[in-house]
Amino acid sequence: MPAAGADFIDGLYTVAGNGDIRTRSGIAVHMYAANRSMTDRYFVDADGELLFVPEQGTIGLRTELGPLTVAPGEVAVVPRGIRFAVELPSGPVRGYLCENFGAAFTLPERGPIGANGLANERDFLAPAAAFQDRQRGVQVVQKFGGNLWAADYDHSPLDVVGWHGNYVPYKYDTANFMVIGTISFDHPDPSIFTVLTSPSELPGLANADFVIFPPRWLVGEDTFRPPWYHRNIMSEFMGLVHGVYDAKAEGFLPGGASLHNTFTSHGPDAETFARASAAELAPQKVDGTLAFMFESRWMMIPTRQAMQAPHRQDDYDAIWKTLTRSFRALA
Amino acid sequence: MPAAGADFIDGLYTVAGNGDIRTRSGIAVHMYAANRSMTDRYFVDADGELLFVPEQGTIGLRTELGPLTVAPGEVAVVPRGIRFAVELPSGPVRGYLCENFGAAFTLPERGPIGANGLANERDFLAPAAAFQDRQRGVQVVQKFGGNLWAADYDHSPLDVVGWHGNYVPYKYDTANFMVIGTISFDHPDPSIFTVLTSPSELPGLANADFVIFPPRWLVGEDTFRPPWYHRNIMSEFMGLVHGVYDAKAEGFLPGGASLHNTFTSHGPDAETFARASAAELAPQKVDGTLAFMFESRWMMIPTRQAMQAPHRQDDYDAIWKTLTRSFRALA
Amino acid sequence: MPAAGADFIDGLYTVAGNGDIRTRSGIAVHMYAANRSMTDRYFVDADGELLFVPEQGTIGLRTELGPLTVAPGEVAVVPRGIRFAVELPSGPVRGYLCENFGAAFTLPERGPIGANGLANERDFLAPAAAFQDRQRGVQVVQKFGGNLWAADYDHSPLDVVGWHGNYVPYKYDTANFMVIGTISFDHPDPSIFTVLTSPSELPGLANADFVIFPPRWLVGEDTFRPPWYHRNIMSEFMGLVHGVYDAKAEGFLPGGASLHNTFTSHGPDAETFARASAAELAPQKVDGTLAFMFESRWMMIPTRQAMQAPHRQDDYDAIWKTLTRSFRALA
Amino acid sequence: MPAAGADFIDGLYTVAGNGDIRTRSGIAVHMYAANRSMTDRYFVDADGELLFVPEQGTIGLRTELGPLTVAPGEVAVVPRGIRFAVELPSGPVRGYLCENFGAAFTLPERGPIGANGLANERDFLAPAAAFQDRQRGVQVVQKFGGNLWAADYDHSPLDVVGWHGNYVPYKYDTANFMVIGTISFDHPDPSIFTVLTSPSELPGLANADFVIFPPRWLVGEDTFRPPWYHRNIMSEFMGLVHGVYDAKAEGFLPGGASLHNTFTSHGPDAETFARASAAELAPQKVDGTLAFMFESRWMMIPTRQAMQAPHRQDDYDAIWKTLTRSFRALA
Amino acid sequence: MPAAGADFIDGLYTVAGNGDIRTRSGIAVHMYAANRSMTDRYFVDADGELLFVPEQGTIGLRTELGPLTVAPGEVAVVPRGIRFAVELPSGPVRGYLCENFGAAFTLPERGPIGANGLANERDFLAPAAAFQDRQRGVQVVQKFGGNLWAADYDHSPLDVVGWHGNYVPYKYDTANFMVIGTISFDHPDPSIFTVLTSPSELPGLANADFVIFPPRWLVGEDTFRPPWYHRNIMSEFMGLVHGVYDAKAEGFLPGGASLHNTFTSHGPDAETFARASAAELAPQKVDGTLAFMFESRWMMIPTRQAMQAPHRQDDYDAIWKTLTRSFRALA
Amino acid sequence: MPAAGADFIDGLYTVAGNGDIRTRSGIAVHMYAANRSMTDRYFVDADGELLFVPEQGTIGLRTELGPLTVAPGEVAVVPRGIRFAVELPSGPVRGYLCENFGAAFTLPERGPIGANGLANERDFLAPAAAFQDRQRGVQVVQKFGGNLWAADYDHSPLDVVGWHGNYVPYKYDTANFMVIGTISFDHPDPSIFTVLTSPSELPGLANADFVIFPPRWLVGEDTFRPPWYHRNIMSEFMGLVHGVYDAKAEGFLPGGASLHNTFTSHGPDAETFARASAAELAPQKVDGTLAFMFESRWMMIPTRQAMQAPHRQDDYDAIWKTLTRSFRALA
Repeated sequence: MPAAGADFIDGLYTVAGNGDIRTRSGIAVHMYAANRSMTDRYFVDADGELLFVPEQGTIGLRTELGPLTVAPGEVAVVPRGIRFAVELPSGPVRGYLCENFGAAFTLPERGPIGANGLANERDFLAPAAAFQDRQRGVQVVQKFGGNLWAADYDHSPLDVVGWHGNYVPYKYDTANFMVIGTISFDHPDPSIFTVLTSPSELPGLANADFVIFPPRWLVGEDTFRPPWYHRNIMSEFMGLVHGVYDAKAEGFLPGGASLHNTFTSHGPDAETFARASAAELAPQKVDGTLAFMFESRWMMIPTRQAMQAPHRQDDYDAIWKTLTRSFRALA
Repeated sequence: MPAAGADFIDGLYTVAGNGDIRTRSGIAVHMYAANRSMTDRYFVDADGELLFVPEQGTIGLRTELGPLTVAPGEVAVVPRGIRFAVELPSGPVRGYLCENFGAAFTLPERGPIGANGLANERDFLAPAAAFQDRQRGVQVVQKFGGNLWAADYDHSPLDVVGWHGNYVPYKYDTANFMVIGTISFDHPDPSIFTVLTSPSELPGLANADFVIFPPRWLVGEDTFRPPWYHRNIMSEFMGLVHGVYDAKAEGFLPGGASLHNTFTSHGPDAETFARASAAELAPQKVDGTLAFMFESRWMMIPTRQAMQAPHRQDDYDAIWKTLTRSFRALA
Repeated sequence: MPAAGADFIDGLYTVAGNGDIRTRSGIAVHMYAANRSMTDRYFVDADGELLFVPEQGTIGLRTELGPLTVAPGEVAVVPRGIRFAVELPSGPVRGYLCENFGAAFTLPERGPIGANGLANERDFLAPAAAFQDRQRGVQVVQKFGGNLWAADYDHSPLDVVGWHGNYVPYKYDTANFMVIGTISFDHPDPSIFTVLTSPSELPGLANADFVIFPPRWLVGEDTFRPPWYHRNIMSEFMGLVHGVYDAKAEGFLPGGASLHNTFTSHGPDAETFARASAAELAPQKVDGTLAFMFESRWMMIPTRQAMQAPHRQDDYDAIWKTLTRSFRALA
Repeated sequence: MPAAGADFIDGLYTVAGNGDIRTRSGIAVHMYAANRSMTDRYFVDADGELLFVPEQGTIGLRTELGPLTVAPGEVAVVPRGIRFAVELPSGPVRGYLCENFGAAFTLPERGPIGANGLANERDFLAPAAAFQDRQRGVQVVQKFGGNLWAADYDHSPLDVVGWHGNYVPYKYDTANFMVIGTISFDHPDPSIFTVLTSPSELPGLANADFVIFPPRWLVGEDTFRPPWYHRNIMSEFMGLVHGVYDAKAEGFLPGGASLHNTFTSHGPDAETFARASAAELAPQKVDGTLAFMFESRWMMIPTRQAMQAPHRQDDYDAIWKTLTRSFRALA
Repeated sequence: MPAAGADFIDGLYTVAGNGDIRTRSGIAVHMYAANRSMTDRYFVDADGELLFVPEQGTIGLRTELGPLTVAPGEVAVVPRGIRFAVELPSGPVRGYLCENFGAAFTLPERGPIGANGLANERDFLAPAAAFQDRQRGVQVVQKFGGNLWAADYDHSPLDVVGWHGNYVPYKYDTANFMVIGTISFDHPDPSIFTVLTSPSELPGLANADFVIFPPRWLVGEDTFRPPWYHRNIMSEFMGLVHGVYDAKAEGFLPGGASLHNTFTSHGPDAETFARASAAELAPQKVDGTLAFMFESRWMMIPTRQAMQAPHRQDDYDAIWKTLTRSFRALA
Repeated sequence: MPAAGADFIDGLYTVAGNGDIRTRSGIAVHMYAANRSMTDRYFVDADGELLFVPEQGTIGLRTELGPLTVAPGEVAVVPRGIRFAVELPSGPVRGYLCENFGAAFTLPERGPIGANGLANERDFLAPAAAFQDRQRGVQVVQKFGGNLWAADYDHSPLDVVGWHGNYVPYKYDTANFMVIGTISFDHPDPSIFTVLTSPSELPGLANADFVIFPPRWLVGEDTFRPPWYHRNIMSEFMGLVHGVYDAKAEGFLPGGASLHNTFTSHGPDAETFARASAAELAPQKVDGTLAFMFESRWMMIPTRQAMQAPHRQDDYDAIWKTLTRSFRALA
């Protein structure tokens, strides 16, 4: 790989994962960073589908079934087994990647929310068919069984002239997400922000949920409005595309990530707790922000490189140190 | 029944219904009005459970399993086959009654809303056991197969000293309903206001839904906020406990009712349409109101007495007469 | 029908029913009595399958798929649409007949009882193939849409030479029923005596259950051993093949029948109550008896002939008249 | 851990297990023994829920949601992720522990047994809320991913002042188990003794069943009454709380355990076989005993310490050595 | 209706039906014939969806969601509650109409046939949006509860400018049906020709199936190739678009119809039987024909006008009269 | 094992596998070859059931429940936990073996194919009970947890005198398979050739499918008749019993095997492609052949011995080398 810079494959960085690639359950979480388009190189993941969450820079996904251009604020999914190249139409890119080994992402069954809430089918966009009639040596990198394998082709694998069906790459603009929340009091479960879900065989317990915290109104009366303190059966991997996440007054930056594993207690930092406990509760617009979670039913095991990374935040739990005891004697 | 006034049984007035009592599907909608407690008289419905929606006056439901006091703003359910008397602790009463022949009312599966939204299990209250040791002649009226049958007993049938189980009368205060709605844009389906549902064998198509329109915030941006114009597979029987319903600028009073049958087009009246189309969209609190719907998957057939009632509103569709044509030529 | 006596068709007597023949739900309950074989006459029921419960005399079911001989203590089922004749190999016959319009009878899912309890597959017997090569005028009577229709054939319709499949008549000897019950204390629901069930679309709520009360041991400690007083969502049609039913000290004879409709309170007669309340609780063998129930989820409507029959017992509820009040003051 | 003696954590001894902690399936079987309360130490299991089966001594489970006192004959469950301390109100304790990684234990769907058999909901007891306002250094030990992790707190984690919901510790007295069994002939599957089940995604094939053999009547006629010889798809881990197990005439003591793994043939010992084959079959009360099984759908792998334990019984299969050949020539 | 001729509404002729309009089950079968477009008149069916099977002449379905042109060989469905007018772009029309009160028609779950057989999703065509900006008096006829109701509008109801969703009219060309059948021996069930199904709550038992007999190859070896003699739980209403149906050597003409009700024995006519029994079995192309069935799980009740129609074929069963006895003595 | 030659156990050769023996999912694929009967040796597999596909020589399966004789063209299944010996009634044998750890093989739900297609229940044959009264030392080899264990018995374990139930060995003659396929155009998915399936918890995604390519007619018009080029979510292990497989013009011999793992592109060899593209499409009988597939939802991992076998075909992909580019310029 003598060319200057790093393409999408070069820049992949695996953070955590769970489940089992060989029996197709669980997910892996990767970060990607690239400053060079994949030229004469193609990628295909036989282990899982790939959910792209761009944080910096627009990516061009040139797939067997046609191209998709995906900017921060948008997300995209490439199904298992579809060949593609990542191109950089406007400079370096960085983002989050959820590799889903389980059931394909789909819209959640919305229950009483009905047909006009959360993400809607019509806002998911598939590519128009396109192909490369390219007769020269290229490399196809395949992820299979957890390993990367390379093969030399004498032509581009993006040689599909037309297609029909619904096993296709797609993209979605989170600005189209109709956010639902309390319009009375109390704080619902963040599952109400689910964009896509990879269901497991147990209803209500997802292999993976993709959940966003987009701009929205807060109007809860008599309510502590930030996320509450809780333990969750789901493991929560959180990232930030831009802006400020409302449970962290400071210290959570775009491109950063946190992991609250299954049954690990967590909640707002001390400053957020103090501010929210004292706030007057007028309608408030949370704006200019996009945080998200990859949630999964099982513990996520961080990789060694993630645990040993110099940029890992060692004192993460300091944000709760200044929380004080709140017991009061009964009169 | 020589005593002055009318008790609960005397004052029942059947408005509409669907399904089949003998094979236990569908519902009937009744109005009740009484100015006298049931004394030495008891009622039991072998055809269906009874959902009480008081509109005026508090009712005392003295049931085999204990007493429940239910005021306007609260609702109560007496299961099929449970004997009870309706008492008037504070004067005349009036209200709506849904007789549910199908599956017992239950909480809807809430999907992504999760465990902290809409009605919560803990807010449904069962009675404490109580009994009458009364040895005198009483009358027990039973609804069975669509008819009323009377039997003379020499003792009160409310002679249950204790009980366990979950086949019990219960009540619910709608003030405990955590209202969920859009906190971004657009107008969700009113199914999002479901308190209780009697499911059918088809997921998503209820035998009956009990839906409320309680106080709540409206914050939808770029949105026509009243209910939209629509045809519905569900038949919508609507009533009003107090206040003003937000799709009817005038003409819908507490104690009144409307029926928009399956696949009948309807929507806001012309005045509401005009006002909402021109409104500036700041956060707005809808307050001091409680409307509700009994929705059902099949057409509801009004009774003859309802169709011929002198108080029936003959010009109901006049509210849409002044809507004007909105086609505009393309430039 | 000039021949002396009555064959099976002549002697059918419909007692009660529910559901709807045209949409195939519910059951009808008939009594049969015959003193003559069907000769040159055949029957076929296109509306439902027929469950025979002989009470007096052995019947020979000569079906398209072969013959079955069924004596009191045994039961048999002829599927919908299978032609057959009822023969009397040993004199006059009498019995109960459940015409099942709903899902075909099958074994109940036995849950924790596992694979060795109640009725077992291997004890249900199908006929060996047999045919009639008979070229003469015969009559085929078909029940279709609730009516009987007759057609003249010039040959026997029992002309099936061989068959394979599982849509077949079968018989079962209730002596093979492995009776399960309490071996500690308390009195289980009689559903524990289910031989066959016609399930509805709702698990746990049968279109029809065939339930028997055969010889068995009673060993419950600290227990009122007869059936308790109850109201039941199921309607209970009860008959008696021989012996004495243990909730009725007297007045219930073989060939008799009782109907406790849905949500109708009932229980042991006063004499049984008194005796069981005072009994010393040693192990006791209930022997020499076979009662049964056809249970169904909906109310059963008796026929006019049944309601007006001179042999109907008008004072049936007298058995409870002498029950006395049991309230006692707390010390 | 300088204090004399061993608390609950010190005395845990893992015997066998199956499934996978990380993907939450299977169980582990432990023995516990302690002679010291946990003081200033707390435990929480993020891998699974814990089913306690005390064999000697009463344990006090001081949980986040309140205390439970559990004596031999009773059992208790602490859900995954709930902090607790084990106290010894009356001296040393010993018992069995099933750590369930799969679906939470629940009552089995009882099928034809109906609503009045086996374990009943009302006999499961939850704790009343209670909390510790304790400001001093404590240790919290967490089982997470199969390892034990310790953290130092400056206050007790049992600081929950009140709670609602149904994710709670509970206890059950096996004396309330309504035992069901044959009251005619034959020997049912021991699944009929199921108290609690952890279902798998396959109906009828449990991740784990908790099955008891409590006092009960045996009245089977014409029947070999002890458990039969069999191979089972379920793996059977058996323990004994007190008394004598009826398939083992000798050699199975309280506190002991046996493992008959999936598809391993087993059955009564030779002495039991001989005695039962010759017994006269009068009603017989099995009394003064409580054996139990943890059954699981997959093979259980014993731990190395269990396989190499000096107290392991090496000649376990000797109990069948004296069984003799029973072929007889046809006359 | 003073204009000369008959439009689609004028020419409707109901033949048979089952189920119940008010509780939405079953179907009705109609014939249509028109020689005039609907001008200033519109139709909407609130009771069920309409499946059009043109037999003569092309119909133009001008619906709220846009126009569809449907020629013989094609079929179309207009959903319940969608307004439309039937136009005659090329002269008089005639055809069959299935009014489906039950679950909407959908593709059958294809099981082992997989994703490339029978009718494929991509061949079902929806209309492009179109609207009428027409300000003049028109009549809208609505079928509701089994009756026709007329309302006067001052504008066309086809005023929908755009739409999204999947509740839409559609058409399908039967020439796209990939016919599957035996390629070895034997004759499969005609369910293998299912184009669309309206499922009931019971898998395998349709409220309605639309089944076609299009051009196809017959290659079964050692096989009687026409439909066999059978009784069917499904009721079979059959029609013919063009050509000859292979179980009727004569007497079944395009535009004709036959009804073999539930459990009614039927099969090939005597001539077909004789010919097929003697035929040499080379590969044979059945060509130039399109027969079809509306199958339904319940008996279909013919209307009085159909039963009394002068064109009804009174001697329909004569086709089997000449079948002869086939018993042969065993040697 | 001093005797000359190799019996069934000696000659087992494991090729590939997936899933997990301990949690019972996935399959293993073995080859067997033996030239000596198992005498005084027995086998039992506690890990999975065994599907035998003989390729050379007839095998005698002497099982606990009786004997089965299985010749090439037939297949047989021995359930998990059933003891048996493989005998060679007519000389050396060779074949394929699928060890199924998951749900037992069963017939696929056939959907629209109905009750008369593919494999039929009546063609599966169970053994008649038989036993060995043999008192001498024998060896029983058990596969348990992926290992082989041997135990010495002093008698034959085939000592079952009689049995009832349906957990039995069985055999099936593939000549009874009613092959279904296109009789119009196009090429269906090979799932249409499914004989037996081991379902997973996900409908449509089998743990294992046993699929055959038996003699059949090809009549597809306007169709490329060989298998198409595809990637498959299922992994395809293919074998050949006799004849020629129609996607491989050469190079695939009886007893050979190919593995196209999940998402690996494959299709006809170049010669087949050329021939089929130019062929005139008359009806054609594919005869004298029996290929088959073991398909599984997960990747199959080849064993080391298989990967390193000298007889492995290293240039397998050469069959596609001569495929040429087919892009053509648009005019």
